Amino acid sequence: MKISMHALSVDLFAPALGNLSSVLQKAAASAAQRKFEPGVLLAARLAPDMLPLTRQVQIAADIAKNSVARLAAQEPPRFEDTETTIEQLQARLARTIDFLTSVPASVLEGSETRDIRLPTGGGRTLEFKGLEFLQRWAIPNVFFHITTAYDILRHNGVELGKRDFLGSGT
Amino acid sequence: MKISMHALSVDLFAPALGNLSSVLQKAAASAAQRKFEPGVLLAARLAPDMLPLTRQVQIAADIAKNSVARLAAQEPPRFEDTETTIEQLQARLARTIDFLTSVPASVLEGSETRDIRLPTGGGRTLEFKGLEFLQRWAIPNVFFHITTAYDILRHNGVELGKRDFLGSGT
Repeated sequence: MKISMHALSVDLFAPALGNLSSVLQKAAASAAQRKFEPGVLLAARLAPDMLPLTRQVQIAADIAKNSVARLAAQEPPRFEDTETTIEQLQARLARTIDFLTSVPASVLEGSETRDIRLPTGGGRTLEFKGLEFLQRWAIPNVFFHITTAYDILRHNGVELGKRDFLGSGT
Repeated sequence: MKISMHALSVDLFAPALGNLSSVLQKAAASAAQRKFEPGVLLAARLAPDMLPLTRQVQIAADIAKNSVARLAAQEPPRFEDTETTIEQLQARLARTIDFLTSVPASVLEGSETRDIRLPTGGGRTLEFKGLEFLQRWAIPNVFFHITTAYDILRHNGVELGKRDFLGSGT
């Protein structure tokens, strides 16, 4: 069986972002049950110099979207970072998943050897081949932000388990 | 270029566990500089019902090791969970990386369609094909525990940045 770049990107990221949306649903239910504004959770951080939940969700979605677009040599859709509610973040995730799953495996064919140039802060540019870009940058990064979103919620008393993170059938 | 199961497992997990070892090195230095026992960090948790740092590191390493062994249809080496210091956890990570990198790509060839049966708690058994096992279970799980280890340390004031998590050249 041939293993595709699609299997290493879209097939990893779309379900993981879907699971994150379910995790956010439980966060909304927890806030309602404990009678506080869900915005408290959206602004929560694990350290003063770490990003709050809203940004963790936005960044997880953007890294998945932009990474697949880079590999596909497409201009990614741009989403403004304007979400202020859990529902809006879930809509952002849904739009991101729609984009990811709209990219067919054929478009990513051969992208394992594509040159990826990634401008970062401070004027640096990272350079990777497509496969290495997924292995060393995109995959760890997407799971970093999804896990940190989960950890922020667990730290704030939302009842979640590993199966919420891993998704149905696990 | 052919994308291998090795590229989706060993090549993802070994560098990520190496980066975790560097993160632990910074944790040791932070404890020394702030003049407290490093064991305080090893026992730290993000929630009372989440696992402490030591277990996050052990589990990240074990899921990587056992997942690759399953795909290779090998009996994985067993490591006792006896570590009580950062140095011992780093040695555990080094032994795990040694095992991972000892598995040649040829042994994982064809494992994308191998039947993987994974006993979980409560008498359930998860069933996957090899590729799906990596996508839905092993990869998210390994990064979950590595990220949570990082998050525990950040929450406890250890000075770390995303580049410590992603590793050199990022």
